[in-house]
Amino acid sequence: MKNIIKYPAQNTWETLLQRPVLEKTNLRNTVQEIFIEVRNEGDSALKKFSEKFDRVNIDNLLVAKEEIELAINQVSPELKEAVSQAKENIYQFHFAQKEKSDEIETTEGVVCWRESRAIEKVGLYIPGGTAPLFSTVLMLAIPAQIAGCKEIILCTPPQNDGSVNPAILYTANLCGISKIFKVGGAQAIAALTFGTESISKADKIFGPGNQYVTQAKQLAMEYNVAIDLPAGPSEVLVIADQTANPEFCAADLLSQAEHGTDSQVIFIATDETVFNETLKEIKKQLSDLPRNEIAKSALEKSSFILMENLDKSIEMSNFYAPEHLILAVDNPRNSVSKITSAGSVFLGNYTPESAGDYASGTNHTLPTNGFARNYSGVSLDSFVKKITIQEISKTGIQNIGKTIEIMAAAEGLMAHKNAVSLRLKSLENGI
Amino acid sequence: MKNIIKYPAQNTWETLLQRPVLEKTNLRNTVQEIFIEVRNEGDSALKKFSEKFDRVNIDNLLVAKEEIELAINQVSPELKEAVSQAKENIYQFHFAQKEKSDEIETTEGVVCWRESRAIEKVGLYIPGGTAPLFSTVLMLAIPAQIAGCKEIILCTPPQNDGSVNPAILYTANLCGISKIFKVGGAQAIAALTFGTESISKADKIFGPGNQYVTQAKQLAMEYNVAIDLPAGPSEVLVIADQTANPEFCAADLLSQAEHGTDSQVIFIATDETVFNETLKEIKKQLSDLPRNEIAKSALEKSSFILMENLDKSIEMSNFYAPEHLILAVDNPRNSVSKITSAGSVFLGNYTPESAGDYASGTNHTLPTNGFARNYSGVSLDSFVKKITIQEISKTGIQNIGKTIEIMAAAEGLMAHKNAVSLRLKSLENGI
Repeated sequence: MKNIIKYPAQNTWETLLQRPVLEKTNLRNTVQEIFIEVRNEGDSALKKFSEKFDRVNIDNLLVAKEEIELAINQVSPELKEAVSQAKENIYQFHFAQKEKSDEIETTEGVVCWRESRAIEKVGLYIPGGTAPLFSTVLMLAIPAQIAGCKEIILCTPPQNDGSVNPAILYTANLCGISKIFKVGGAQAIAALTFGTESISKADKIFGPGNQYVTQAKQLAMEYNVAIDLPAGPSEVLVIADQTANPEFCAADLLSQAEHGTDSQVIFIATDETVFNETLKEIKKQLSDLPRNEIAKSALEKSSFILMENLDKSIEMSNFYAPEHLILAVDNPRNSVSKITSAGSVFLGNYTPESAGDYASGTNHTLPTNGFARNYSGVSLDSFVKKITIQEISKTGIQNIGKTIEIMAAAEGLMAHKNAVSLRLKSLENGI
Repeated sequence: MKNIIKYPAQNTWETLLQRPVLEKTNLRNTVQEIFIEVRNEGDSALKKFSEKFDRVNIDNLLVAKEEIELAINQVSPELKEAVSQAKENIYQFHFAQKEKSDEIETTEGVVCWRESRAIEKVGLYIPGGTAPLFSTVLMLAIPAQIAGCKEIILCTPPQNDGSVNPAILYTANLCGISKIFKVGGAQAIAALTFGTESISKADKIFGPGNQYVTQAKQLAMEYNVAIDLPAGPSEVLVIADQTANPEFCAADLLSQAEHGTDSQVIFIATDETVFNETLKEIKKQLSDLPRNEIAKSALEKSSFILMENLDKSIEMSNFYAPEHLILAVDNPRNSVSKITSAGSVFLGNYTPESAGDYASGTNHTLPTNGFARNYSGVSLDSFVKKITIQEISKTGIQNIGKTIEIMAAAEGLMAHKNAVSLRLKSLENGI
């Protein structure tokens, strides 16, 4: 933990809060080649890449019913119950995001409104690797189902033995996803971008992944596929005052740090005792963690800051725009209105980030890397598009017709004007 | 008008509705060079490019107060009144998009909600060229103001004499925008991406433009700036039944065709008389239009289709996913629920597309090029991000703590689990 700073001057904030810079290597070309091969060769390219990258031969890309049934038996009853409670909470919170469509009569006879429509075909990517992220299945599949997406396809890399982690299969099945494919990496994103014999082309692709997957999602956009969010390493910022519990603060910082060596944690305390105690607690708790090497490496790139007061701490947080923000302060609700940029906010001593990661109901697919300045996290909105609709009566067009004619003429668009003039004339003649 | 087709088989739809393919030339490199120069040289690069591309010397990039006052005097009273009515309607419709923040108690003691925050710094690009799009100023500046964006910067290319079109200045000023810069093209987007001495870096860039601007907005995303929408040529699809007015249909099709030679119009009629009459009307109205050469060229790439019935027509429209959809049919509200993909929908004989382009209240910045499948048009949502917030009480963490512990452990993330375990333990000890 190198960056331990007391009362930093504002002109040092930028350097102090610098995020780990991601190497931009020649990934684009590598991924572009994978894309071209998948577009040209379809499933056989997917199998080839699985052999090459995942070192496994896959005969059937589609996970069979029997595999799902087996997975259901392999998952423990207590995990099933946990997933069920999490699902219920996530469902409730996202269901409440459904928007009522109010009609607005902007001028007498001119009625406008919006209606949501599901994005029809969505692709969900769930990474394999060290952590089987079945929680991400919940976070993506539940809003997709509430939105009413017609086709929900899940891609996830096969394990060494050609199987998929049972918790992922169990959760996907629980959320009604029947099309689960054993394919990972950039080739999975390519399959969702172009479609293959087995896998349908998606309108939008969701989900986290390594640098290849991230680059592939960027490339997918060039082929007119939408994506959930630009990606970056995960991060948390914790603000603590004298009422904070150093043991909890340390645990929250470590839970972020264990995600990956490129994770970043920022700790801002307004109280020197809490500050020092938290640093001590981090060292103490770190040694017991199975992923302590990862966490240690993440902590190297992180900052621990003693700050004058709460307002300045929040100012710093807004400047950083964290993915996760924990306010371990007295009366945290008083501070919410001051927060201008953050992905998700956790209030008080009993609201750890892990609650939002799994089970409070909020979504854990959030803007990282400063994107909290200009992007929202995944929500029901991410799975729908909103269509505007207008209906104008005869009276309505008479009320706004002249305005349209004048503006269209001023822009030199006479056919635009004419579309109104003909209607006004026909109404004059009719009267 | 080459594509006049009666009752096309479904397997021909894709070819029939093909959009004009945009040449993907070496724009990326050209724009990349402009970006690098603007990043390194700032304002002086902007002035250099204005000289090169717009053939005009600009001393002060910022439009002066005196220029705005002059513009206010130059705009006619009747145009002022028209802009004022349009502004009022657009304001009403977008203001109604403000979202109330309902708290959801997903489990006893676990409260989650969302709050909107303005994207702080937004850049609006308004093209120059043949049509001075002051209407687009309204469409972007009004929701930016309602959202509460702190910094709203407008860039628009200077005319040959170094001035900016008065209607653009008048409208921007009316919408409270004080920072108007005379700079266009890819260099304007570069300025908003990196910031220069005069122009602040933006978090998100909005607005239409030519192929250089479009490519520049794509590139801006690689530098972590968000954009409103991927761009493409404008388009309308009109569905007409026996109740449609051929004169109106023709006028609506032409108002889209006059936008640009790459615009596309699709006409689907279920009634042969209306179909034939509309084709005749197009020829008749075309000759009187000042932009008839543009419109003619657009019509060359367009399709006129006679279809069996309304349901099949809507099915075809959903397949095409038009930016604008006009339903010139009896009881058009009955068909709204069947529409799955469209940017904005216009119902009945007295709702021309120009109404939405200028004054009904809906936004005219819409998804083109098939993006209506996976993107929404610009709305208040485009200028905010939504932050999720959660507050968990001691009871709350006791209610969901075990779920989090089990799920975190199953994902192998023990620090995530520990953040909850420590809290549960402290509560047990406290009791």
